[in-house]
Amino acid sequence: LKRIKIVVAYDGTNYCGWQIQPNEITVEKVLNDKLSKLLGEDIKIIGASRTDSGVHALGNVAVFDTNSTIPGDRFSYALNTLLPDDITIQASCEVQKDFHPRHCDTRKIYEYKILNRQFPVPTKRLDTYFFSHCLDINKMKETAKYLVGEHDFKSFCSVKTQTETTVRTIYSLEVTRSDDVVSIKVIGNGFLYNMVRIIAGTLIQVGTGYYEPINIKEMLGSIDRTVAGPTAPPEGLTLVEIQFL
Amino acid sequence: LKRIKIVVAYDGTNYCGWQIQPNEITVEKVLNDKLSKLLGEDIKIIGASRTDSGVHALGNVAVFDTNSTIPGDRFSYALNTLLPDDITIQASCEVQKDFHPRHCDTRKIYEYKILNRQFPVPTKRLDTYFFSHCLDINKMKETAKYLVGEHDFKSFCSVKTQTETTVRTIYSLEVTRSDDVVSIKVIGNGFLYNMVRIIAGTLIQVGTGYYEPINIKEMLGSIDRTVAGPTAPPEGLTLVEIQFL
Repeated sequence: LKRIKIVVAYDGTNYCGWQIQPNEITVEKVLNDKLSKLLGEDIKIIGASRTDSGVHALGNVAVFDTNSTIPGDRFSYALNTLLPDDITIQASCEVQKDFHPRHCDTRKIYEYKILNRQFPVPTKRLDTYFFSHCLDINKMKETAKYLVGEHDFKSFCSVKTQTETTVRTIYSLEVTRSDDVVSIKVIGNGFLYNMVRIIAGTLIQVGTGYYEPINIKEMLGSIDRTVAGPTAPPEGLTLVEIQFL
Repeated sequence: LKRIKIVVAYDGTNYCGWQIQPNEITVEKVLNDKLSKLLGEDIKIIGASRTDSGVHALGNVAVFDTNSTIPGDRFSYALNTLLPDDITIQASCEVQKDFHPRHCDTRKIYEYKILNRQFPVPTKRLDTYFFSHCLDINKMKETAKYLVGEHDFKSFCSVKTQTETTVRTIYSLEVTRSDDVVSIKVIGNGFLYNMVRIIAGTLIQVGTGYYEPINIKEMLGSIDRTVAGPTAPPEGLTLVEIQFL
């Protein structure tokens, strides 16, 4: 028995997120089904990050155990021939048998993309959130500085969050504009439920002038979800990369 | 009766191109149907450019005549409420009654995008052509220089082309790479049937080393479709803009 790690990219538009749920099509379910078909074994993958319904990934990570003789780096090619267009394996390799993608120290990189122009663009609709109101990028950049570092992010996670501590560290949070796409790129040691989307929703409200950058300091201090901005829609969010330290 | 000009963006993935055909869903058909519904008149638009099946647009142009009292610049908003996600109006205005989008001198801008990496990326699949072989961008840039200017492009158009002359002028042809996307951007006074896709297909074959840049000079000189490279797939091509001179 050997353990294989796969790096998975997907367009989350048509999936109820990563995690298996009864009567729903999820990325985990498709991967289990296709791997089981490919290998003739009952495969149950273990994912690193349970992305929400409608959220995308360039580099989510999962592992599974198999008796297959396929070399580790060939699983990507074999599995891609069976997968639908909206899921692709980016890499595969054999890892140590005790490697567990949720029991490791990691750095995660997320990007939230806003298509900021008068009218939507059909070819960009998969992975951007369309928002037509003017955004003050400089104010958004200023706000980002308050969020970097180790903080209690209780104001910036869903009230449904179940976790021992809501303290997390954001290593960097960059807001940039390239033509009509505003990108919010955040690197941290882990993120709470809906945390990136609430940060994006709050930064958007700073961009429109609804909040001032300094308000974010108070929001962090309040430790209260009701004081921060709304949860931005899932279609703008992509899990870019998970780095195992 | 007034004449309205609309600028249309679409994801061509699910359309049999622009032009109305029996028993097929085309962009022109959807626009005629939705405009007729919106205005209560039998609307037949006149398009500037009949893009092929699977080809996209950011700025195709069409006109139609109507008795409606809706101000010219409001048609975009009104029509967008009726259109599916893969077609949006980017602008609308009233124009002179004799303005015909195919009887004007124009500059057209097309972009062909190649996703050049080991494995496909689902969120980029709508408007890029996935090609995993290494591409020598410098050779592609060198090749592009031979195509700029006024030439007989008979070697670079479909044998099905019906036109008085196959002489066209390319004002600029730029090949650039940004991360894993290679972009071929071409500006000309008009393009023959499949011309941009044959240029892209030929540049790709130069990029892989199958042709040398100097071969393109001979191809142009041969005035023979069989000597140029293949027609690149439609999904990489976008009609970016039509400028009326």
